[in-house]
Amino acid sequence: LISKQPNTGTTIFTVMSKLASEHEALNLSQGFPNFDCSPKLTELVNHYLKKGMNQYAPMAGIQSLREIIAQKVSDLYQVNYHPESEVTVVSGATEALYAAITAIVHQGDEVILLEPCYDSYTPAITLNGGIPVYVTLTPANEYKIDWEIVKSKITDKTKLIILNTPHNPTGTVLSEEDLNCLADIVKDTNIFLVGDEVYEHIIFDGLSHWSLLRNPVLKERSFICGSFGKTFHVTGWKVGYCLAPKQLTEEFRKVHQWLTFSTVTPIQYALADFLQEPENYLSIPQFYQEKRDKFLTCIQDSRFTFTPAKGSFFQCVNYERITDENDYDLAIRLTKEIGVASIPVSVFYHQKNDFKILRFCFAKDDETLEKAGERLSKL
Amino acid sequence: LISKQPNTGTTIFTVMSKLASEHEALNLSQGFPNFDCSPKLTELVNHYLKKGMNQYAPMAGIQSLREIIAQKVSDLYQVNYHPESEVTVVSGATEALYAAITAIVHQGDEVILLEPCYDSYTPAITLNGGIPVYVTLTPANEYKIDWEIVKSKITDKTKLIILNTPHNPTGTVLSEEDLNCLADIVKDTNIFLVGDEVYEHIIFDGLSHWSLLRNPVLKERSFICGSFGKTFHVTGWKVGYCLAPKQLTEEFRKVHQWLTFSTVTPIQYALADFLQEPENYLSIPQFYQEKRDKFLTCIQDSRFTFTPAKGSFFQCVNYERITDENDYDLAIRLTKEIGVASIPVSVFYHQKNDFKILRFCFAKDDETLEKAGERLSKL
Ligand SMILES: CSCCC(=O)C(=O)O
Ligand SMILES: CSCCC(=O)C(=O)O
Repeated sequence: LISKQPNTGTTIFTVMSKLASEHEALNLSQGFPNFDCSPKLTELVNHYLKKGMNQYAPMAGIQSLREIIAQKVSDLYQVNYHPESEVTVVSGATEALYAAITAIVHQGDEVILLEPCYDSYTPAITLNGGIPVYVTLTPANEYKIDWEIVKSKITDKTKLIILNTPHNPTGTVLSEEDLNCLADIVKDTNIFLVGDEVYEHIIFDGLSHWSLLRNPVLKERSFICGSFGKTFHVTGWKVGYCLAPKQLTEEFRKVHQWLTFSTVTPIQYALADFLQEPENYLSIPQFYQEKRDKFLTCIQDSRFTFTPAKGSFFQCVNYERITDENDYDLAIRLTKEIGVASIPVSVFYHQKNDFKILRFCFAKDDETLEKAGERLSKL
Repeated sequence: LISKQPNTGTTIFTVMSKLASEHEALNLSQGFPNFDCSPKLTELVNHYLKKGMNQYAPMAGIQSLREIIAQKVSDLYQVNYHPESEVTVVSGATEALYAAITAIVHQGDEVILLEPCYDSYTPAITLNGGIPVYVTLTPANEYKIDWEIVKSKITDKTKLIILNTPHNPTGTVLSEEDLNCLADIVKDTNIFLVGDEVYEHIIFDGLSHWSLLRNPVLKERSFICGSFGKTFHVTGWKVGYCLAPKQLTEEFRKVHQWLTFSTVTPIQYALADFLQEPENYLSIPQFYQEKRDKFLTCIQDSRFTFTPAKGSFFQCVNYERITDENDYDLAIRLTKEIGVASIPVSVFYHQKNDFKILRFCFAKDDETLEKAGERLSKL
């Protein structure tokens, strides 16, 4: 058996979560909340389970969920997607990303990635015969994107650029100005875009989420990937969606149809109802900003240095004042020795660049954040 | 946007189910039950929802579900799979098929399919740059496989053969003798196998399910794809699994990890509990045999001719004594005019061979089967 992905190991999230549980460490590694969702939401799922909504959903998702997603986007950003032909419900944002990439990337196509980046992008590209082309962002200038460098990577084989805002792992966000620069670059090309926007509602300090869909030049060529798991504290439900103009959605669905066909029905009905109440997502930025601030307070007396995350539920910290170990070794050692698991940011770079940075997930109850802070402050 | 799948339309199941609902027809087309699952099962899901099992499951599935799957296979077939390294839980058997094919099929590889076959195989192959090679089975000899013909299709590019037993749409099953013939063909080759065995428990007349895993030569090169949706009347829950030897499972997981990462957590816990009671699946053959017999009784006075299905929840019937229309037109006409939706079997052939056969799904309550029988008997 000739491996198509000889170099793929187990994802870092599996590795660290397993290590955390073996050592009974506080798990601030893999990105998931350790608190539960609204009881209203589980009660809704129960309602639809009991009501017998247990057979195949339509391939594109149930109508009412597609409609309320479109409604929400229109309310928030004054941008329209047609629920029938431009909104597709899928089995988590990971599937949305994989399906969009599969729909677009042919053998030999180049895809521009801004690293550090989420670890599923590269394998999704290479499994489809594509070639990842990396633009490397560094903490030196707070991961700001130099759009001239992005432009310089474009060749006649460039098919797709993948953007992520709010950004995992760095907690940065794109600005309106970033979107304008990107629009200038792609406007006369046939380049498509994927917007990984799963942390859409996890954004702080009054910042506005600059979704790619808010720029008309970008919208017409974008697959916007969203996640209910991240927004509603149910990462294990695996329901996400993709917004894309009609023609792009057609190609997206041609893939989704063969990848998973459809997504868990009773949960779709529950989400459709839950989304009817905007407060359920409008309350999220404030909720997570408090989590971020709590975590930052807990580590303020530590020797880590950091810029507060602007979005996502991750905080990156530099540990150079503490040790010169590499980040991977340190993440493992801290899990074993002080009982706090994190993610070494080098894993998000294809050449494992080590800028001495760890990523902590602050989607945890206050007690966990306090205990983690105490332990980390002793270093 | 250059389509990777220019010829992919909407799957027939979506088309027919939609037409059925527009015309308020009895929907015997798409394969799903119109009755509900055991209330015990929904209660279990509710229990785990309320218990807060709502975050990411491990990538390979929760331990207890992998263990009970391995246990069940061992009890039923006296064959061992290691829960840790040889059992993977995925988001429906469709994902299992797609992931197995993606793991195996490189650009230019040939994959042998026995048609008629399920409509996701071909796109999963071509999306991965593979080339489907068809062996055509016909109703003339009751879809019996001529293994000499299969053998004659093998070239040095053959990478995979996909088998499906019990078979959708024809309701045939593989025999022990079939497995022996297949083993003779593949034993000295590097050819892999995918066993689509989602109807494992839907088998009649005391026949034994000859899973590929029961033949050691086949087992060592097989990905066996199973589905809880089909077995427990919950097609909308989208939980399936893949059994494969360690090395194959490693490659399988490398794909699954990027396709969907993990599968809906509370449902995995519920299934793990539900599988503890073997009666929950041991009762299924009898249950569906009664459905088949009910349907056959309802159409026995019709002018259709048929061989009773040996497995699956589908019955194929020949309509030549009624009309010489092609099967696609007839399926549409019957939906609109007499209010009974079916699937034209030509859609399962890559060249749409029309043998004048319709497929009816008998996973329906008795009243629906009776009404459908009445309407069909008037033709
Ligand atoms: C799919 S597991 C990874 C969760 C996550 O998004 C992260 O930790 O970055
Ligand atoms: C995924 S929809 C198709 C259901 C099915 O297996 C069938 O009708 O053949």
